[in-house]
Amino acid sequence: MRTTRLRFPACLATLSVVFSAQGVESGPQISPPNWWANMGASTLQLMVHAPDIAGSTVSVGDSTFKIDKVSSLDSKNYLFIDVDTSDLMPGDYALTFSKQGKQLYSALYTIEKRAHNSANRQGFNQKDTIYLVTPDRFANGDPSNDSVSGLQDKANRSAPGGRHGGDIQGLIDQLDYISSTGFTQIWSMPLLENAMDDHSYHGYAITDFYEIDPRYGTNSQYRQFSHQAGDEGVGIIMDMVLNHIGSNHPWMEDMPAKNWINHDGQFSPTTHRRESLHDPHGVQADQQAFSDGWFVPSMPDLNQRNPYLANYLIQNAIWWVEYANLSGIRVDTYSYSDKAFLSDWTARLTSEYPNLNIVGEEWTTNPVITAYWQAGSYRADNYASSLPSVMDFPLQDTLVNALKDKETWGTGLVSLYNLLAGDFIYGDPYNLVIFGDNHDMSRIYTQLEESYPLWDMAMTFLLTSRGIPQVYYGTEILMANPDSDDHGIIRSDFPGGWQGDKVNAFTQKGLSDEQRQAYNRIKSLLALRKDHPVVATGKFTHFAPADGIYVYFRTNDAGEGAMVILNKNNEVASVALSRFEPVLKRFSTAVGWQDKQSLSVKNAKVDVAPQSATVWLLQ
Amino acid sequence: MRTTRLRFPACLATLSVVFSAQGVESGPQISPPNWWANMGASTLQLMVHAPDIAGSTVSVGDSTFKIDKVSSLDSKNYLFIDVDTSDLMPGDYALTFSKQGKQLYSALYTIEKRAHNSANRQGFNQKDTIYLVTPDRFANGDPSNDSVSGLQDKANRSAPGGRHGGDIQGLIDQLDYISSTGFTQIWSMPLLENAMDDHSYHGYAITDFYEIDPRYGTNSQYRQFSHQAGDEGVGIIMDMVLNHIGSNHPWMEDMPAKNWINHDGQFSPTTHRRESLHDPHGVQADQQAFSDGWFVPSMPDLNQRNPYLANYLIQNAIWWVEYANLSGIRVDTYSYSDKAFLSDWTARLTSEYPNLNIVGEEWTTNPVITAYWQAGSYRADNYASSLPSVMDFPLQDTLVNALKDKETWGTGLVSLYNLLAGDFIYGDPYNLVIFGDNHDMSRIYTQLEESYPLWDMAMTFLLTSRGIPQVYYGTEILMANPDSDDHGIIRSDFPGGWQGDKVNAFTQKGLSDEQRQAYNRIKSLLALRKDHPVVATGKFTHFAPADGIYVYFRTNDAGEGAMVILNKNNEVASVALSRFEPVLKRFSTAVGWQDKQSLSVKNAKVDVAPQSATVWLLQ
Repeated sequence: MRTTRLRFPACLATLSVVFSAQGVESGPQISPPNWWANMGASTLQLMVHAPDIAGSTVSVGDSTFKIDKVSSLDSKNYLFIDVDTSDLMPGDYALTFSKQGKQLYSALYTIEKRAHNSANRQGFNQKDTIYLVTPDRFANGDPSNDSVSGLQDKANRSAPGGRHGGDIQGLIDQLDYISSTGFTQIWSMPLLENAMDDHSYHGYAITDFYEIDPRYGTNSQYRQFSHQAGDEGVGIIMDMVLNHIGSNHPWMEDMPAKNWINHDGQFSPTTHRRESLHDPHGVQADQQAFSDGWFVPSMPDLNQRNPYLANYLIQNAIWWVEYANLSGIRVDTYSYSDKAFLSDWTARLTSEYPNLNIVGEEWTTNPVITAYWQAGSYRADNYASSLPSVMDFPLQDTLVNALKDKETWGTGLVSLYNLLAGDFIYGDPYNLVIFGDNHDMSRIYTQLEESYPLWDMAMTFLLTSRGIPQVYYGTEILMANPDSDDHGIIRSDFPGGWQGDKVNAFTQKGLSDEQRQAYNRIKSLLALRKDHPVVATGKFTHFAPADGIYVYFRTNDAGEGAMVILNKNNEVASVALSRFEPVLKRFSTAVGWQDKQSLSVKNAKVDVAPQSATVWLLQ
Repeated sequence: MRTTRLRFPACLATLSVVFSAQGVESGPQISPPNWWANMGASTLQLMVHAPDIAGSTVSVGDSTFKIDKVSSLDSKNYLFIDVDTSDLMPGDYALTFSKQGKQLYSALYTIEKRAHNSANRQGFNQKDTIYLVTPDRFANGDPSNDSVSGLQDKANRSAPGGRHGGDIQGLIDQLDYISSTGFTQIWSMPLLENAMDDHSYHGYAITDFYEIDPRYGTNSQYRQFSHQAGDEGVGIIMDMVLNHIGSNHPWMEDMPAKNWINHDGQFSPTTHRRESLHDPHGVQADQQAFSDGWFVPSMPDLNQRNPYLANYLIQNAIWWVEYANLSGIRVDTYSYSDKAFLSDWTARLTSEYPNLNIVGEEWTTNPVITAYWQAGSYRADNYASSLPSVMDFPLQDTLVNALKDKETWGTGLVSLYNLLAGDFIYGDPYNLVIFGDNHDMSRIYTQLEESYPLWDMAMTFLLTSRGIPQVYYGTEILMANPDSDDHGIIRSDFPGGWQGDKVNAFTQKGLSDEQRQAYNRIKSLLALRKDHPVVATGKFTHFAPADGIYVYFRTNDAGEGAMVILNKNNEVASVALSRFEPVLKRFSTAVGWQDKQSLSVKNAKVDVAPQSATVWLLQ
């Protein structure tokens, strides 16, 4: 969808530009479309796309724009320029592309000034709670862009897999809702162009890495969204896809290099056996069958072993961080990309932004596999990973089972305890992103068989436990998918996001009592995290569950503390605090977070309601 | 049950011995009862037990018997002598114990000559298959010792938890059966004295660490058993209990030190939460609640932090290795003992016997926890463990589920593949002991719901996979516990082990056709392991399962190989071999192990029967 990026400032109005035969409108497309001065790395590799541009020589008037190398690969329509950016100052640089002395194209390339403190930006962290949205399904702020000419897959709200019209304007409009509920980060499923024939709403079949899909809005609107969110103290986490593209990506018509797409551009399915990457008993072929295989025919699998593609993906990520002032990145299908490339990608990103947070999706319930990818984890091999965070799928699965399973010697809450006791394998368990559900699985309320008490326990646990909680939009109003686990149903429209919706969850109009109760519980838990940061960031200490009771603490060196008791029993439980003396000895008083009742922690017993999660603040 | 250990060689017949008031028969009891010259360690700590012996001085006529230190603890009836054994030669050494110049006791202490190559003994290893027996339930070779005067818990074959009369003589009598079936190691549940009021048959409530229970036989008979087994190429693995004793152990009447038993000698149950030992979020109190808690009131928990007790246990283990010529040790309830002690115990044992094998029981399905204990595993802390092997409980659990669960994307055979692909966390996955069941869980045939094909697949897998297989007695004749998981039922009498048994599995008399089939399958698989060691010791290579088919290989540098195909489908499967080219390229021909059909591996397809495990030998 990108048309010309050529800009004609006044000083260049007289420059003679030779356009290709394909038409005057299509000047050379340069990726990244701009860059910034004073980046950490002094290298930049431009991908220039224009008819017959391969083999061109490139000249620039300004000597500070140092070209180290110009390369062509297999396509005649791509040129790669390695730039040494050490001396680059903000400004526009005129590039001319010539062959045999004849000027083919020219373009301006803009180097911008970085935002203040950009390199040291603070990524999302334990203080935060992430709100995950499916943008097509959250709020339709601009009905005029529901369908866009030139793009298939027009709006069809009645189709579960169709586009429903949600957009960035909707997100902007509802920033107040998100922020006032207490969320401090927004992770939206991908907003980049998906010029696919159908099912484009999910966003994971990207056809342009540098353009917001016009059905969601524009690049500048995304940037505006990020800035407005920032003004409300809300960070933006971008969902990035390194593993694959949409099959309508222009690369599929004209690959820069023959090996750009795995399996020679032909569909061959991935085994999904991520375990093969680590397998001491495996063969290389099985690793490749996992890494190089495609998800589906509509998602060609990128070969990041091609160094030009690797650079492209690295620079693309950096570009969006700079451009849209991101507070973090979520990486889709993390381990499916080339393993060595992931090492480079994470190293480059974290070198450029030491405090940015990046969370990888590795869908396995085996914590050994998730831990493998996190920076600082112990590994039996010498693999280097700079990935700060991983999605804690093992906890998701264990939490649900812990709540649903009968309490026995080895099942129930003890499985949650056991999992967390295994945290010694993680480089930093506090920096894992924890969640009850996401856009790819049944709603947590459905997983818990629509038990409100279990939902309450799950959400209280997630919002008071170690890790950075992520809540999927609609969880706060008990959205469910009781009759279907179709993704399109799981990702249902948020009520109130569309004109004429009878229920409006943004205003609470039409919500059931239980939905209001749920919303208020989430809101108050988020307030608790803000008012008492120890709940979100304190040292986590837990005690082995017994008799259906699980007790844990968050404490810090400032003498603050919180105690949480999960009671899975169907009766009131009277819990003697004496066992928790190793933590409680630093405190004198426990104040019920909700009932405000105060009691001395010494030799006390506390009664906790049946099937409940109760929080005390310790003083 | 030990009475006097005092020996009167002719040369000492004139020595004046003052016995205690308690009776002439009870001379000082010294543990270990003897020792050997030229051990690796030059220290030996004798525990001397006799009335009022604490505070004695000790003298020895021979200056090569160097006493470094004599200590008394809290009991007046125990004395500890630290001996420097550097210069000790085989022989009898006369010790005299005196107080205020008055001789209280004397005793001879024998230093024996070590058996040839004792220090370098080869422990059980991958070549082996271990036969686990419950000795009370295997064969009653000597009905005269079924009940023994002075010991409660008389024989009662009709009680599931009673003594049934099996003994060492029975094991000796059936060595031919065990050996001719193809087993090369015998792990018997503990044979040491259990002078308990009831349920003594299981052996884990030891009341004398240096005496075989007289209902099983004598020390010298055990040694004879080991030597006879050795003559048939069968090693003996002793089941050792470091964690606890039986409550009728004399220590409970008179503890050498007040802190000899955890929780001041009073019952306080263990939490069984082994995870707490590793827990970065846990408190020391929870670790102690696990480590120091007792299993049951009849099993007082030893405090191995007491260095005298630690030495006692270390020396006891070494003593049995030397005395009974052991090929290995199985350590009961491994992680329940003090963690630092386990580090010392394993270091001392493996320092004394670098090639001995020792396998610890750590009952968890979490491989991170089992791996933690194995020598060479990567650990996030600096804990030192010299334990060569761990029981592979994760594999046991996974194998059963892999066979029983429906084949889906994430369940069935793929779970077995996934588990093994995670072997990178183990110091040495090949040295794990693998098993389908043991004495503490339902019989594998019962776990597999008495499906013969699944049983066949399980046993074929276990006998051809990485690790050292262990088979519980009776598995070879499909012993089952369909109506009860009572331990006494699981550990039922082996048919033919008792006079008058109508069925005799030793002679196959009265076995069903299916039992004969099972026996022959086990026997032929064990023969396969011997005839083609590559099946037992070759490099293990597997391929991600697909469509209910799991294929793996064993290969070695000598150009030998084996291919195993598990087919869980209810139909014949035609398996194309091309995918296995990374392994097969080294071979030209596959010969069906059973049907002897030969085929070229190039571009071949092989048909495998429904629900089967098929083995090919590769050339």
